[in-house]
Amino acid sequence: MKQPKDMRILLVEDNPDDIELTLRVFRKYHIINQIIVARDGEEALEHLFNSRKGIPEEERPDLILLDLKLPKVDGLEVLRQIKSHPRTQPIPVVILTSSKEEDDLIKSYQLGVNSYIRKPVNFDNFIEVIRQLGLYWLLLNEPPPPPPEK
Amino acid sequence: MKQPKDMRILLVEDNPDDIELTLRVFRKYHIINQIIVARDGEEALEHLFNSRKGIPEEERPDLILLDLKLPKVDGLEVLRQIKSHPRTQPIPVVILTSSKEEDDLIKSYQLGVNSYIRKPVNFDNFIEVIRQLGLYWLLLNEPPPPPPEK
Repeated sequence: MKQPKDMRILLVEDNPDDIELTLRVFRKYHIINQIIVARDGEEALEHLFNSRKGIPEEERPDLILLDLKLPKVDGLEVLRQIKSHPRTQPIPVVILTSSKEEDDLIKSYQLGVNSYIRKPVNFDNFIEVIRQLGLYWLLLNEPPPPPPEK
Repeated sequence: MKQPKDMRILLVEDNPDDIELTLRVFRKYHIINQIIVARDGEEALEHLFNSRKGIPEEERPDLILLDLKLPKVDGLEVLRQIKSHPRTQPIPVVILTSSKEEDDLIKSYQLGVNSYIRKPVNFDNFIEVIRQLGLYWLLLNEPPPPPPEK
């Protein structure tokens, strides 16, 4: 099993404050070493799919934190593509959104999201939620193993 | 949003000690009121599918904790059926297993499991894992809303 410190998170988020805060929480609690930030949906898809054979296996993220309201390609479309390709389908995806629309919630589950979390508006609550989700997905949950070499 | 105390868990587990311990942790931390226990895979499927129109909407579980090694119908088959039917597909399913087989892990993610957790052998660790997963899925995660009436 991969050690938590070796795990990689792909954080797909366009709000600079939320990015900064999330990185700070992960650093503070020594939750993770490697976080890749994608600032819009297109950048996320490029990171996951756009080299000729996809990204090298050792760079595949072990967890994806995905905002919904994103520039260029929205979060639901990114989720749809992740869950449609056998190579990325097993990666746990947690939606992290301020959306209060029930439709976003319904569609995310239909598309196979692993977990859906509403961003708290309150600063301290936001930090606590990030801490708890980091601990859950990186320490408690067993991530999917990398697919076999071809 | 449903309040955590109104949520229902379906616990699919054949080991009486694990059932007892899980119920005790949820009671102790006031995590949940309603837990339905299914002691084998067939009982779980009957609970989810076998009345003429399925179980009434208000009795649909909000979270399923699923063991893998089960009598009659194994956990992977239960998972496959849950994730194949539009009515049950959105329900978060957490595999809770003592299996160390990588194949179980790979198949669970391929079938669309939401999270996969190895049961700790140590008693105190087991309690802590159950507590944390209860808090995560019942307090932090936003469950899928019930499907619209037909």
